Amino acid sequence: MIVLFTDFGTRDPYVGQVKARLAEHAPGECVVDLLHEAPDFNAHAGAHLLAAFAPGFPPGCVFLAVVDPGVGTPRDAVVLMAGGHWFVGPDNGLLSVVAARNTDTRVWRITWRPETLSATFHGRDLFARIAADIARGAFPADKLAPVPSLKVEFDAGDLARVIYIDHYGNAWSGVRGAPPKTRVTAGGSLFKYGDTFGGVGKGEAFWFVNSVGLVELAVNRGSAAAVFGLKVGDPVQVQRPN
Amino acid sequence: MIVLFTDFGTRDPYVGQVKARLAEHAPGECVVDLLHEAPDFNAHAGAHLLAAFAPGFPPGCVFLAVVDPGVGTPRDAVVLMAGGHWFVGPDNGLLSVVAARNTDTRVWRITWRPETLSATFHGRDLFARIAADIARGAFPADKLAPVPSLKVEFDAGDLARVIYIDHYGNAWSGVRGAPPKTRVTAGGSLFKYGDTFGGVGKGEAFWFVNSVGLVELAVNRGSAAAVFGLKVGDPVQVQRPN
Amino acid sequence: MIVLFTDFGTRDPYVGQVKARLAEHAPGECVVDLLHEAPDFNAHAGAHLLAAFAPGFPPGCVFLAVVDPGVGTPRDAVVLMAGGHWFVGPDNGLLSVVAARNTDTRVWRITWRPETLSATFHGRDLFARIAADIARGAFPADKLAPVPSLKVEFDAGDLARVIYIDHYGNAWSGVRGAPPKTRVTAGGSLFKYGDTFGGVGKGEAFWFVNSVGLVELAVNRGSAAAVFGLKVGDPVQVQRPN
Repeated sequence: MIVLFTDFGTRDPYVGQVKARLAEHAPGECVVDLLHEAPDFNAHAGAHLLAAFAPGFPPGCVFLAVVDPGVGTPRDAVVLMAGGHWFVGPDNGLLSVVAARNTDTRVWRITWRPETLSATFHGRDLFARIAADIARGAFPADKLAPVPSLKVEFDAGDLARVIYIDHYGNAWSGVRGAPPKTRVTAGGSLFKYGDTFGGVGKGEAFWFVNSVGLVELAVNRGSAAAVFGLKVGDPVQVQRPN
Repeated sequence: MIVLFTDFGTRDPYVGQVKARLAEHAPGECVVDLLHEAPDFNAHAGAHLLAAFAPGFPPGCVFLAVVDPGVGTPRDAVVLMAGGHWFVGPDNGLLSVVAARNTDTRVWRITWRPETLSATFHGRDLFARIAADIARGAFPADKLAPVPSLKVEFDAGDLARVIYIDHYGNAWSGVRGAPPKTRVTAGGSLFKYGDTFGGVGKGEAFWFVNSVGLVELAVNRGSAAAVFGLKVGDPVQVQRPN
Repeated sequence: MIVLFTDFGTRDPYVGQVKARLAEHAPGECVVDLLHEAPDFNAHAGAHLLAAFAPGFPPGCVFLAVVDPGVGTPRDAVVLMAGGHWFVGPDNGLLSVVAARNTDTRVWRITWRPETLSATFHGRDLFARIAADIARGAFPADKLAPVPSLKVEFDAGDLARVIYIDHYGNAWSGVRGAPPKTRVTAGGSLFKYGDTFGGVGKGEAFWFVNSVGLVELAVNRGSAAAVFGLKVGDPVQVQRPN
């Protein structure tokens, strides 16, 4: 299974161009669109999102992870093995949180370049080709050089900021878990704890631990982002009980 | 074929998480995204949309239908067989219109629970698993208990309201069929009948019977929703000729 | 491989209905969503986009290309063979640029009509069926009549206008290639040349030749469309060096 995690957008032609390459080079392989609206140009938020999602996927998955504002500059292209999964993407921090949270990691730099490499679309020209090779079980050792670690690393602890806002207006933080008595504040307001949407009144705000284990801020049948003016990058204060 | 009908949004990671589960538990099965922008939290509009779409799909399809604002509350999870199709989703009315419009219905309550069941994402954890079983021809009788009928039922007659607005700004009503001489009024305006877009002038408003049999309001090369200020839930008056 | 190129939108049920037909009539065939947000009702911009994308796809692909504001009027439905690819769609100019840029073209009019043909959704009822036949290697000669050429033709030279704006706010022109010393002006501003995003400062505007060979206007980590007020159809002046 190849899992796509990008900021290419869902309405643009970029994903389709990548999929056509995958179909050419790994025919018949299952391709799953996990996220194409990772916060634009924001490898930091993306790194925490990716690390939250990955454990829910079956062993052996290949994540094609591309949030790559530095495309065309000398940033490295890498392959990471971590937590039983493969990750293919830029060495700009995007893969660093998943790497830091696992102990079984290995890293390779992609030394191969295709005959035609556009300056702006390595997702299609480079990363998709390597991901296709790995997915069809043909590890491309001749296209890679082992390296001791990623070059760019982000702090792998929790990220006490909004890292994603979904179409309902729910705001995901980068904070993992938290007991119900935790005090959670964002946008100047204290949120109460609720375990699920149906458990609070219509229009009520609450926080909960979401389905990938992160503290999430929501309004039942409403938009927490709109009500509290939240956007990606805003701080979320999380004060755990003593 | 597994057909997805949800309010999970097209830009969020929810659909991808569901598809990864389907790929794990029903590998190789064809999965079709029918709609992921069913009106949020609105099982009533969703029920009428689903009932309009279902007959156009081949026999044996499994619809994974999730518009589920009550997730995590004691609402039942159910399987419905109706019109030669399978439906898996919450018992909150969403499946009730398709049930009421068919005579060959059978209903089961899902009694099985997975080892790990999130409070907020039964689409991934529960419904996808049952849909996968049915799609690969392994009817999960041990996970189900037959029940006489759905608990929550909506009126299965036509719904004289706007139930969907597409990206062109066309407004679908929940009214089925209607002869050309019908008087159709919405947003304070009387719409004339047109059989197709090319048959009226640019910028002209008209109503027609759309490709799933519903009365739809449109503006040729424009947005009926914007011009007439229409939104989901607005009344549509339909006065058939004597 | 069947490649979808439409203005059906990514959030509406139209694409899913088309895919269900493809799955019925060409089971197991790989289907790639290239673009579903081609500029609405704009066959001219669509024609130039399609011609830019097609060469990047493998030989034998079938493009289902539907931007069809004249659906239901007497415009012809056609099959085009050009550049080693198949194209199925309306004869409204949408296929004319790809036809004009290739020398190996053949054209057929679709004479067959399905038992049930909606007035508004030939993409599902007619074009999908023909595309499915071709994709599974069963050329539907009995449903087609050879014709000497397309009826509606657009100028196949470069189109010095904005033809697409992506979700980052990058504006694609219909101008192919151009050396770095070219003067590119749009929205009243002169753009400097940059070869990639990482090569200019944050917030800086530049033009580059994009991954399908078109002159594109961008702002590094920003939106060129928002900064310069660009929209589809706006002129882009391109003055090549002497």
